[in-house]
Amino acid sequence: MMAARIAAAQMVSGPDIAHNLREAGRLLAQAADRGARLVALPEYFPLISGNERDKLRAREKDGEGPLQDFLREAALRHKIWLIGGSIPLEAESADKVRNACLVFDDAGQRVARYDKMHLFDFTRGAERYDEKQTIEAGNQIVTFDTPFGRVGLSICYDVRFPELYRAMGAVDLLVVVAAFTHTTGQAHWELLLRARAVENLCYVLASAQGGTHPSGRMTWGDSMVVDPWGAVLTRLPKGAGVVTADMDPARLTELRASLPALRHRVL
Amino acid sequence: MMAARIAAAQMVSGPDIAHNLREAGRLLAQAADRGARLVALPEYFPLISGNERDKLRAREKDGEGPLQDFLREAALRHKIWLIGGSIPLEAESADKVRNACLVFDDAGQRVARYDKMHLFDFTRGAERYDEKQTIEAGNQIVTFDTPFGRVGLSICYDVRFPELYRAMGAVDLLVVVAAFTHTTGQAHWELLLRARAVENLCYVLASAQGGTHPSGRMTWGDSMVVDPWGAVLTRLPKGAGVVTADMDPARLTELRASLPALRHRVL
Repeated sequence: MMAARIAAAQMVSGPDIAHNLREAGRLLAQAADRGARLVALPEYFPLISGNERDKLRAREKDGEGPLQDFLREAALRHKIWLIGGSIPLEAESADKVRNACLVFDDAGQRVARYDKMHLFDFTRGAERYDEKQTIEAGNQIVTFDTPFGRVGLSICYDVRFPELYRAMGAVDLLVVVAAFTHTTGQAHWELLLRARAVENLCYVLASAQGGTHPSGRMTWGDSMVVDPWGAVLTRLPKGAGVVTADMDPARLTELRASLPALRHRVL
Repeated sequence: MMAARIAAAQMVSGPDIAHNLREAGRLLAQAADRGARLVALPEYFPLISGNERDKLRAREKDGEGPLQDFLREAALRHKIWLIGGSIPLEAESADKVRNACLVFDDAGQRVARYDKMHLFDFTRGAERYDEKQTIEAGNQIVTFDTPFGRVGLSICYDVRFPELYRAMGAVDLLVVVAAFTHTTGQAHWELLLRARAVENLCYVLASAQGGTHPSGRMTWGDSMVVDPWGAVLTRLPKGAGVVTADMDPARLTELRASLPALRHRVL
């Protein structure tokens, strides 16, 4: 396992897909310029609009389409491992999409696909989300290997379910791509990311939507990298931008020797 | 499910068992005076000395002995549900103990026994703990019902293992009785307690050893009650004392309706 700089790109995506792709491209170039070898985009990076059914308009077949072309080409151009936030892929139902996180390696080869397993459902006053209306849940836990260690994938609301991360087995880096709401993000985002890092003794890379979107939706942002002892190494509270931090294999080895909790699981 | 005031008693136990029992008795009386209906003592409340083998000296058979008499009588006297921190009970090996949390109801009837399942093991510089040398691990997850809701039991290092709490099923109150070290407590105690509350949408009652013990050992303290949205309702950073807070069934119901994550588990 090699040391590596990793990065989270934070966005405030709107309804214009072409505009969002240009913005994502700009942030990926910035991350690569700053030496990042692995970069994560946020959930729904190509499109956040006031109409959840717009996801159907952007939906692609697995393996072909402009969103997937964009990701593959960006990974290849910048020679980065690219965690492609999430894009809408075909579902069994014609009315729904899979909320899918695709990963391309630094040669532009696709190495993983994770479909969000836990669908967000939240009501408080006028604030209402119910993802099962437009999204079909995935049912596969996904990890993959890189030169920088083993990586586990998750999307947004998944972070509330610790058993997902425990079912991955030992990983060196957990990725959470998200569009956390302002309300729940303020209460729980940092807390849950840090807890996942500490209990799994691994780095956490979290890339989020963060700001007030053209639709009026407010997302929490605070994209960050957390170290395996729970320290926030870097963060961006709001707005588009990139944060980077270095994964240190020696630190992982040292902490896991000091506190061998990964060997103490009995359930 | 009724509303109820709950309390954590924090101690700085030393090597003198009789002294520790008097101190525990004083704190339980104080909690009852303040209206608590359910009170938790900390891990190892009867004895913390410089010699881990002292636990063998205090070890009791299940069902008889002065430590168990103390707990039963205190529950009965104060008419409280008493989570008896932990005491050393007989193990299969004559050289070891079970680190056992006994619970007595407000009529002095024993209603639960939980034996610590995850044994702490930590090394940093001269700081070294290895509980498996003197403790035999339990293998039973324990919950029990009270008029104030369903309660799940755990001890100290267990809090690093989210799967223990998920295996309990839905509970209204998680209890963590602890003697967290200063080093690991500073880094992780509040974080992990708040995460357990949030991901399980329940109250957390944490009673700890907290201070510099006669043996020189430093524990973190910070006994607290956390609400099901992750807010710390009350806390005591260091020293002997009692903290109380009120469990509100309406708040549990409202939050679980607003964010029905307990119904969204798929793993």
